[in-house]
Amino acid sequence: MKYEQRLKKLQRLLKEKKCDALYVDDAVNLFYLTGIQLSAGVLLAHAKGAFLLVDGRYIEMCKKLSPFPVILTNQFMKSLAELISNECKFISRLAFNSENTSYKSYLLLEKCLAEISSKLELVALDNPVKQLRSIKDKNEIALLRDAAALGSKGFDYACQCLKEGITEVEVASELEIFWKRLGSKGLAFDPIIAFGSNSSMPHYRAGDAKLKKGDTVLIDIGVNFEHYNSDMTRVVYFKKADPKILEIHEIVEKAQAKALALCRPGVLIGDIDRAAREFIQKKGFGEYFNHGLGHGVGLEIHEWPVIKNIDPWKEIPLEEGMVITIEPGIYLPNHGGVRIENTVVITKEGYEDFTKRNTKPVVIN
Amino acid sequence: MKYEQRLKKLQRLLKEKKCDALYVDDAVNLFYLTGIQLSAGVLLAHAKGAFLLVDGRYIEMCKKLSPFPVILTNQFMKSLAELISNECKFISRLAFNSENTSYKSYLLLEKCLAEISSKLELVALDNPVKQLRSIKDKNEIALLRDAAALGSKGFDYACQCLKEGITEVEVASELEIFWKRLGSKGLAFDPIIAFGSNSSMPHYRAGDAKLKKGDTVLIDIGVNFEHYNSDMTRVVYFKKADPKILEIHEIVEKAQAKALALCRPGVLIGDIDRAAREFIQKKGFGEYFNHGLGHGVGLEIHEWPVIKNIDPWKEIPLEEGMVITIEPGIYLPNHGGVRIENTVVITKEGYEDFTKRNTKPVVIN
Repeated sequence: MKYEQRLKKLQRLLKEKKCDALYVDDAVNLFYLTGIQLSAGVLLAHAKGAFLLVDGRYIEMCKKLSPFPVILTNQFMKSLAELISNECKFISRLAFNSENTSYKSYLLLEKCLAEISSKLELVALDNPVKQLRSIKDKNEIALLRDAAALGSKGFDYACQCLKEGITEVEVASELEIFWKRLGSKGLAFDPIIAFGSNSSMPHYRAGDAKLKKGDTVLIDIGVNFEHYNSDMTRVVYFKKADPKILEIHEIVEKAQAKALALCRPGVLIGDIDRAAREFIQKKGFGEYFNHGLGHGVGLEIHEWPVIKNIDPWKEIPLEEGMVITIEPGIYLPNHGGVRIENTVVITKEGYEDFTKRNTKPVVIN
Repeated sequence: MKYEQRLKKLQRLLKEKKCDALYVDDAVNLFYLTGIQLSAGVLLAHAKGAFLLVDGRYIEMCKKLSPFPVILTNQFMKSLAELISNECKFISRLAFNSENTSYKSYLLLEKCLAEISSKLELVALDNPVKQLRSIKDKNEIALLRDAAALGSKGFDYACQCLKEGITEVEVASELEIFWKRLGSKGLAFDPIIAFGSNSSMPHYRAGDAKLKKGDTVLIDIGVNFEHYNSDMTRVVYFKKADPKILEIHEIVEKAQAKALALCRPGVLIGDIDRAAREFIQKKGFGEYFNHGLGHGVGLEIHEWPVIKNIDPWKEIPLEEGMVITIEPGIYLPNHGGVRIENTVVITKEGYEDFTKRNTKPVVIN
């Protein structure tokens, strides 16, 4: 049922774009549309149904699990062309996802289709399945809530691990094991555990730095639970807080609150980003907030929408069912940084916060 | 030094292709060429050096770690075009990796370059960095040997976990934790732990099946250690072996030995695949060996070369420094399957086997 509904939504979207079918070849979109994890495969989603093309490694599994008819092939493009020329003659505009399809695959697709018909048109779309995925259904929201709860438990655990001399990597490993024991599928991303001045690098990864008194500790972590990801960031202080960092902590916290206060259906993404960014600018730290305000979260850690006051996102309104992060930050080079990140789902009236943890500065003793 | 040497090799390769520079935008090739893990970034590798373009999230980290000059940008393609028109005027043929570059990025690249010069030519190459990566250097071979040793220890541990009633997923989780405690970076891929008839699906994943007496147990596992991957497969039998499976076990074992016996520099990949495949065919199981014989292993779990008797691989000779798997298999649908997989490095005289574990059928009690 779930996959038929998703296919129906996709069919409506394709119709709007005046396309008769979509070629899908990337793992995440294949999983979303079929529920099967494939390292290789092609789904032809068309106006009347769908076909799943897989090779010998997956055929038995797909025959058992696929919601759509399965075709065995070692030459995806050739089989696809045959399928179109035999069973799907009504296809005249075939869409593909230009964001994921490689240039090489595009050329091959073009060549195979040209061999069967000169009238068949290839249409580059900007990841239509990702567009569908930006609005989560009830079941997805429940899984994302569960993932976030597991993520928050992991944050508590990481704080417990903070002892003099422990390294960033050791905290990250302990956290991963903790999550695994509680049933995680894996990490949403390599944990960012940054001690002291390492916290000024937004996309730092855990390294060999040892924890010492007075260190700022930035913890940006996410877990994958039942294929859905969590994402949260907090900054805590080991035994003693740095007054300069505490100052930016308070600004970041207020900037986040300003953005969150706007989160509800219909509000433009550009306005949400601006609310946080302008506040930080007014406080004199604008140049030290050097990334977007947030992003969608789901099967992938970075999904649509992008919460940033740029084209095309700024004119897009939030919708019920979007799950997004709100994560302003201020980074003082070679000194330290603060980012505070919550994951929320947009509801009819506003939002539900999945990250049930204090945003205030906490000193760990 | 390491990255300068890699750049030099790349420059030679580009010269052969009559290209002046290469546009690199995928994470693995960026890591190979710079040593930095980036979720976004562009390297312009040219005949005289290289530039690394990153956004605000990575700028401080890259200034510390990059072997090449770093440029801060929020618009990669635009900055790239500016760079070419100012500091790299000598570039007239710019290559890109058609296997990883998306159609969308290709269009954007084309547009930005057309704005600066009508003479600048874009050249689609088939992942030239991956071609370099297929020959491992001494340091990479040492890391792959270490990864394989950790992988083999994990196999021993997984066998110890096999108790009546344990599920496939439980074994996989315990194994992941075991590896993590020994310093793994993560999994090379989701463990394939398949009990009973699940072993007949080559790309099965661990599920909820419970182990019972008489089960065939297929264990295909890999660990990531210091960015390099291991890969091995063994089949063991829980308390009692199935005679039909034992029969194919012996055939697969001999097929693997026949392929391994050919592994040395200069032997054509097609001949290696044929040695195993024809043996299995002669024994009457040809239709049940439905995948390639093996693949390169390195920073990615599937690298070049592909060990399969197909174009273009069949005419390519093995070279010293290639690290590959040899993994024939026979799968009896709805009954069970056997795959035996070793990872080896091609040496001057032959090969060194990284997978130091018995290939014989073992009954676990």
